[in-house]
Amino acid sequence: MTFNHNQILELDERFRRNLINSSHGAKTLVLVGSKSKRGVTNLAIFSQIIHIGANPPLVGLLFRPDSVERNTLDNIRSTGEYTIQNVRNSFYKKAHQTSARYAKDRSEFDACGFTEIYFKGFSAPFVGESNVKMGLSLKSETKIKENGTILLIGQIEVLSIEDELLGKDGYIDHFKAETSAGGGLDDYFMLTKLSRLTYAKPDQPINEIKE
Amino acid sequence: MTFNHNQILELDERFRRNLINSSHGAKTLVLVGSKSKRGVTNLAIFSQIIHIGANPPLVGLLFRPDSVERNTLDNIRSTGEYTIQNVRNSFYKKAHQTSARYAKDRSEFDACGFTEIYFKGFSAPFVGESNVKMGLSLKSETKIKENGTILLIGQIEVLSIEDELLGKDGYIDHFKAETSAGGGLDDYFMLTKLSRLTYAKPDQPINEIKE
Repeated sequence: MTFNHNQILELDERFRRNLINSSHGAKTLVLVGSKSKRGVTNLAIFSQIIHIGANPPLVGLLFRPDSVERNTLDNIRSTGEYTIQNVRNSFYKKAHQTSARYAKDRSEFDACGFTEIYFKGFSAPFVGESNVKMGLSLKSETKIKENGTILLIGQIEVLSIEDELLGKDGYIDHFKAETSAGGGLDDYFMLTKLSRLTYAKPDQPINEIKE
Repeated sequence: MTFNHNQILELDERFRRNLINSSHGAKTLVLVGSKSKRGVTNLAIFSQIIHIGANPPLVGLLFRPDSVERNTLDNIRSTGEYTIQNVRNSFYKKAHQTSARYAKDRSEFDACGFTEIYFKGFSAPFVGESNVKMGLSLKSETKIKENGTILLIGQIEVLSIEDELLGKDGYIDHFKAETSAGGGLDDYFMLTKLSRLTYAKPDQPINEIKE
């Protein structure tokens, strides 16, 4: 089936949302933790996340200002701090539940059954059940003029990984971590290892890295 | 293991690159096709891709201007067109091979063994072996001031999916498509279905969508 731009614009709204959201393949899935000035914690599932750079360590998150993510955006703007951590196969359904529209004074940690934990010197809440966690400080906001979404750039202030997941070369094993991936808006995948591959050079065979 | 910001900055460069690149969990993997003004086609594997919006249908790609991706960026800037398509489990090693530094007049389609195909009215090359493909027109460029990377926003002009992968509600089945996912810079995953979940509402159970 092939759609051109005008045909995409003419599609039923829900069909188009599913289609375009699932058109990229697997997506990163994370839980974003934050806390309001009044002290109410918030937890939201996100797939619009992008690696920006390693040095300095930067992460991008895209927000639609008119959606349920609005609480998270307000909290990040007012406190300057937030957390990002992996969704795991054992709790992807609870992670999905954080996308429900809870009242503003209700914490998704409590409503969805996640454990709030804190790192010294960092005010935003982390998810105890995740095994790859980072705490970020907000560096900048960029408005995407084509549709009004907002790209937040955050700097990693703290990164915590369970010891057994971290390889000697810095690589984090998300298969061992039982990290989940997303598809469109509501589908969830487990990861199965294919392999790690050696650095590619022209006209030389690629090899699997044996661990 | 926990690293704070200063400890991350003091890490060995390669260790840090692996660590930060693998800190998000699973990543979207795509092949980006383009063609130079002189007619040389180019194909490059990317994981820095983000869904921007469904209406209009927009996709973001992040470029480091000093890397091997430079050919792709030059081509997109000069022609205004490019393609994005899924990496599949059957050819992830060939897709990885596109990251080698080939001479500028050599096509990765040829060097890595991919089939160039074209859609009427669209100049950039698609990958015949992919089963979810899109052609995009460049809408804007935004420089990320924190590290000089460049976010390209593209509009989907054509989207082509194998019929058997497209659900009645517009959802594309990437498990059936045998789409691969990435981890850090060199590791590859297959997807295994967990489930699709119903729309989340406060204090109501989530159900699996039966297909």
